[in-house]
Amino acid sequence: MTATADIAVTGLAVMGRNLARNLARHGHVVGLHNRTKARTDELVAQFGSEGTFVAADSLADLVASLKRPRKVIIMVKAGAGTDAVIDELADLLEEGDIVVDGGNAHYADTRRREAALRERGLHFVGTGVSGGEEGALNGPSIMPGGTREAYSTLGPILESIAAVVDGTPCCVHVGADGAGHFVKMVHNGIEYADMQLIAEAYDLMRSLLGRTPAELAEVFQGWNEGDLESFLIEITAEVLATPDPRTGSGALVDVVLDQAEQKGTGRWTVQIALDLGTPVSGIAEAVFARSLSGHAEQRRAAAGVLPGPAGSVTVGEEFVEDVRRALYASKVVAYAQGFDMIRAGAAEYGWDIDLGAMATIWRGGCIIRARFLDRIREAYEKTPDLTSLLVDPYFASAVSEAQEAWRRVVATAAAAGVPAPGFASALAYYDGLRRDRLPASLVQGLRDLFGAHTYKRIDAEGTFHVDWSGDKSEQDAS
Amino acid sequence: MTATADIAVTGLAVMGRNLARNLARHGHVVGLHNRTKARTDELVAQFGSEGTFVAADSLADLVASLKRPRKVIIMVKAGAGTDAVIDELADLLEEGDIVVDGGNAHYADTRRREAALRERGLHFVGTGVSGGEEGALNGPSIMPGGTREAYSTLGPILESIAAVVDGTPCCVHVGADGAGHFVKMVHNGIEYADMQLIAEAYDLMRSLLGRTPAELAEVFQGWNEGDLESFLIEITAEVLATPDPRTGSGALVDVVLDQAEQKGTGRWTVQIALDLGTPVSGIAEAVFARSLSGHAEQRRAAAGVLPGPAGSVTVGEEFVEDVRRALYASKVVAYAQGFDMIRAGAAEYGWDIDLGAMATIWRGGCIIRARFLDRIREAYEKTPDLTSLLVDPYFASAVSEAQEAWRRVVATAAAAGVPAPGFASALAYYDGLRRDRLPASLVQGLRDLFGAHTYKRIDAEGTFHVDWSGDKSEQDAS
Repeated sequence: MTATADIAVTGLAVMGRNLARNLARHGHVVGLHNRTKARTDELVAQFGSEGTFVAADSLADLVASLKRPRKVIIMVKAGAGTDAVIDELADLLEEGDIVVDGGNAHYADTRRREAALRERGLHFVGTGVSGGEEGALNGPSIMPGGTREAYSTLGPILESIAAVVDGTPCCVHVGADGAGHFVKMVHNGIEYADMQLIAEAYDLMRSLLGRTPAELAEVFQGWNEGDLESFLIEITAEVLATPDPRTGSGALVDVVLDQAEQKGTGRWTVQIALDLGTPVSGIAEAVFARSLSGHAEQRRAAAGVLPGPAGSVTVGEEFVEDVRRALYASKVVAYAQGFDMIRAGAAEYGWDIDLGAMATIWRGGCIIRARFLDRIREAYEKTPDLTSLLVDPYFASAVSEAQEAWRRVVATAAAAGVPAPGFASALAYYDGLRRDRLPASLVQGLRDLFGAHTYKRIDAEGTFHVDWSGDKSEQDAS
Repeated sequence: MTATADIAVTGLAVMGRNLARNLARHGHVVGLHNRTKARTDELVAQFGSEGTFVAADSLADLVASLKRPRKVIIMVKAGAGTDAVIDELADLLEEGDIVVDGGNAHYADTRRREAALRERGLHFVGTGVSGGEEGALNGPSIMPGGTREAYSTLGPILESIAAVVDGTPCCVHVGADGAGHFVKMVHNGIEYADMQLIAEAYDLMRSLLGRTPAELAEVFQGWNEGDLESFLIEITAEVLATPDPRTGSGALVDVVLDQAEQKGTGRWTVQIALDLGTPVSGIAEAVFARSLSGHAEQRRAAAGVLPGPAGSVTVGEEFVEDVRRALYASKVVAYAQGFDMIRAGAAEYGWDIDLGAMATIWRGGCIIRARFLDRIREAYEKTPDLTSLLVDPYFASAVSEAQEAWRRVVATAAAAGVPAPGFASALAYYDGLRRDRLPASLVQGLRDLFGAHTYKRIDAEGTFHVDWSGDKSEQDAS
């Protein structure tokens, strides 16, 4: 076998297949491998005309088909399967070759794998790939980690197949080892928050204004012309406009079971944020809202037993604009929390992550692509060490303008009995952040009383403890 | 050395020392050991008259001083230190002996340690001990895991030193291996939620009614006579009534730095709840509120830049009663979520946990001891497989009565700009649980559109997918 392939893909389920086709369409000679050869042959038979493919029977053949340094993208289901493929590949590759994991791996696994392959002289690039099947084929947002050296040869290929916005590819070297998968995880966490907020906006308008899904599709379509312009708002309009495909009437959302599922990255985001000490309350409420929806037995038991408000709440036409503003402000909070988490992760693991560049590569290809990411990019370009996205002048002003409407929406949801955990949590975060004094001082007082956990003072250095069971004098506990 | 001791304690920092004294006061002969012998001698010199102590120079001596089956309680700081002590002890002990870990270990560590000691014929009992120093000395709430066999000899000793409520000791065999530490972890998570809710109640009344801490101390004292009667409400009154100990004037809470700290069990609770799929949003908001309070740099940057509401919100005297009801209802939600989590953990790890018994042993000794735990005990005694605490007739009625006030408080907090993430999140959970249809159907629709994640229908078995890029027909994806 002559080494003719520029890059290879192993694992040809829909994501791997589409990525391979995308690579071939951009002029790269693509080695192909799949555990079941039939899938490889099918790809070549169906899409062979899109570029040059080299079908391999085995991983050894695949490796033999590659020019050096060899680049192999693994597109198998995240987990133990990935380790098995990596092990087999590592035995076949030579120093300087590059193994790419394009699955949704946990960044801790990526760190472990990178360290193991580095020991063997191989590069390991864990990369986030966002955009689903469609993105993989036509231009995803790509978030590769690993060494700069690996990126110098691999990067141009990835950039050539990524989505492009304003002439800039949605792909950049994120940082060392697990940085790419970490950022992809946070991206997914933000996606959870975003979808929850959209769902609350829909629910509030439907419940309180009595609009039909089709009418609300038009509202979202209108919103997609303004600040909220984004892929998720666009497809919300599309989903809401879709009738029940069985009957062609009614609304799809009315026949879909209202129990949201999840695959784990939202959960990981919250778990890691807890370790990093970053409040990502918007993402947490979104993850919990999904799990609450899935507790069918509890919901059945509660329905009819737990009452809603006695009176009804009436809102006028202006409620639509209020909800739009509440959605925008809550969304800014979710992104602020997500970017805080990336900064905290970078500090923890020593990654040199350019936050503005993350906003840049999320502008296209990925699920959370949105017009306002340009504003986030600008904010971090202007002030790379921005303390919080919320204090950037543009966002501070945007949220200031939205806040009265936001407050009305949260208050209305509470009064009307429509659950809006995402809106409420985001507003509480905003009010907590801006508050001069928080009641955390009382919490510290309680902790000192029952557990001698000590406290700090506003007017002196050191830590202190009150002799609660004695004369209540203050003791220096520094 | 003659074997005369009934039980031993190694690790004589304040918790270990108080536990040892508690044991001695109840007539048990207590072996004592500490890495630094001075601490052991100090205990005997100071408190030797309280009972019979046997001071040991080494772990080997300690083991030699014990009657069989030997029972050694380890009271060292949770972590690697615990493993070292366990290893050393295990080499000295004999089949049937019992090692007790009374620290705040992660239940996963306890499961690992229990399995390792079981292999060697030893019992390992990871036990939660709540109540702080005071409880350890005068009667804690004790939550031991491990085998029934271990409990049959160890249990009576633990029960003799536990807090007692209505003649019942606050100690019961929780379940196998890590069950005790798991339940203690959830106990602490609930404690986080409880304290956050109290802090919000205080903050709202202070901000909107302009009451002083001393005046609010009286309000909490009054609340402690009713449904809210609990240790945390009682000590809230005490902390709020305390002046700055330096000057004897003003209020302690006004000179304490408003950055709440945490030691980890609240964080663990949320992380594990995410894995178990149990929404513990109240605990999560409490943990995040603490971490938000600690982000001093962000808070400084936000103060003055992020505005609050333009108008001011006026509330009347009746707001106090509204807040009391909101606090009670939110607290019921926090406990409902915590008990759900214990049930989910029990199902995951095969523990046979009696939820009513957990409420029973939390009635005294521990930080969350409260009158209403008697109602929880009754609820689970009546219906052991209760779907949610909220649907128990007593609690459903209590929360129903509180809900209008609760809604007013959440709406007022949003309008006034006072952060109330705990109240808001609890109400959103309540409204989510009782709701006939949730907008999770829209979330599922979006997920199907961008990721082909499929959906279920309300009117048919199976999973389905819409051909979004084609003719929008429905495909069976079962």
